[in-house]
Amino acid sequence: MVTERQVCCRLQHQRVAVGNEAAIGVSTGAGERGAEAASRTSLEEGVEKARQLLIPPLNFGMVDDGVYRSGYPQPNNFSFLQTLRLRSIVYLCQEAYPKVHTEFLKKHDIKLFHHGMEGTKEPFVEIPALVIKETLKVILDKRNHPVLIHCKKGKHRTGCLVGCLRKLQNFSLTSIFDEYQRFAGAKARIVDQQFIELFDLSWFEGHRVGWTCTCNCQCQKHLFCVRPSTYVLSKEKNHHEAQQD
Amino acid sequence: MVTERQVCCRLQHQRVAVGNEAAIGVSTGAGERGAEAASRTSLEEGVEKARQLLIPPLNFGMVDDGVYRSGYPQPNNFSFLQTLRLRSIVYLCQEAYPKVHTEFLKKHDIKLFHHGMEGTKEPFVEIPALVIKETLKVILDKRNHPVLIHCKKGKHRTGCLVGCLRKLQNFSLTSIFDEYQRFAGAKARIVDQQFIELFDLSWFEGHRVGWTCTCNCQCQKHLFCVRPSTYVLSKEKNHHEAQQD
Repeated sequence: MVTERQVCCRLQHQRVAVGNEAAIGVSTGAGERGAEAASRTSLEEGVEKARQLLIPPLNFGMVDDGVYRSGYPQPNNFSFLQTLRLRSIVYLCQEAYPKVHTEFLKKHDIKLFHHGMEGTKEPFVEIPALVIKETLKVILDKRNHPVLIHCKKGKHRTGCLVGCLRKLQNFSLTSIFDEYQRFAGAKARIVDQQFIELFDLSWFEGHRVGWTCTCNCQCQKHLFCVRPSTYVLSKEKNHHEAQQD
Repeated sequence: MVTERQVCCRLQHQRVAVGNEAAIGVSTGAGERGAEAASRTSLEEGVEKARQLLIPPLNFGMVDDGVYRSGYPQPNNFSFLQTLRLRSIVYLCQEAYPKVHTEFLKKHDIKLFHHGMEGTKEPFVEIPALVIKETLKVILDKRNHPVLIHCKKGKHRTGCLVGCLRKLQNFSLTSIFDEYQRFAGAKARIVDQQFIELFDLSWFEGHRVGWTCTCNCQCQKHLFCVRPSTYVLSKEKNHHEAQQD
């Protein structure tokens, strides 16, 4: 399926191609007609190749099976996002989603979880732990997978959220901070890492029962695999998915 | 299942615990006996928690469904690696694999692809393109998934390989370099990025036929999904996997 944007892009490239031909003064001689055709084919190939280029959003990465992270996706990232076959997006900024984005979501039947929060601007703003907890609940629910988590740069809010997810998965703190810093680079913040370190997991212990599946079967596989004091995203498919195969 | 190392670790922790009790002079009075028991329980909980900590290898990351990358795994990363249920490891250094590693592979039925190469030490050593091509063939074969790619630091050799994979996937060069730099950090090398940019994909076009499935059905789903001039790791399961569900 060719989108409107792709058509625009293709047309633009064609205009460039025509412009180039004029600039190099293509004549209509018999021998040159063949060369012209060959050149056009090569140009068309180039245009086609450029059109197919996949551009992941800024700071894109795969967190776990069915969970992705990134900075703010732009329209030129949409064709890449399509390849992920997303079922939902978790958006962590407070600003409303632009129209072009909501249209993309609607067209591809992607659910938006808008869990807006301010980034940590020390010493005045703190990441709201309650929003992080509610967001983790969305991410751990396999019915929302594949899910993309994003904020503006994919560094601080997304970094804190992924850090807390890693804590639930029982990753060592050094590994968590290493991953946080890989995405935050020179903009890494001590307060973010402190937030992750002090993030209270007891809430999840207490709410374990409430996290079982809400579908008719009451299975737990939709959500996550619980080991003694360890939460991990289940690598197993739930039996509903298995039945569909 | 408790491994030998975990037992050692547990014993070591117990010795520390006993040492601590001696140091704080625990008496055997009736009231204190309860406190001692409580303290021991809390210590045991702490030990148990530390034992369950998952420690991914240095520079660990998920490349795509069923493909992971990292630096050299150490024995304290083995319990984490177990959670990935690896089917194979692609090892890019020239040195032989240590005994403790080969034993781990044997125990968990993990196949080793030892595709040794030297890192780029400009201007004298170049990444061997042929080895990269052969290695990509291993990585694109879904029968080897989940697969972990690693060298020493997970920066240069692994970075070049993943960069070439991204090129096959038709990612834009800016995205490829961004990912390379995220893992290489301050050690990013221009020659590595140049290697990725100049890496010749025509070999893959020519060998497309040879890449179809070698099993009886001759399906292509084992390997990768081919779009016109674009290779992507197939997100679909092949029908053999579907039958097993």
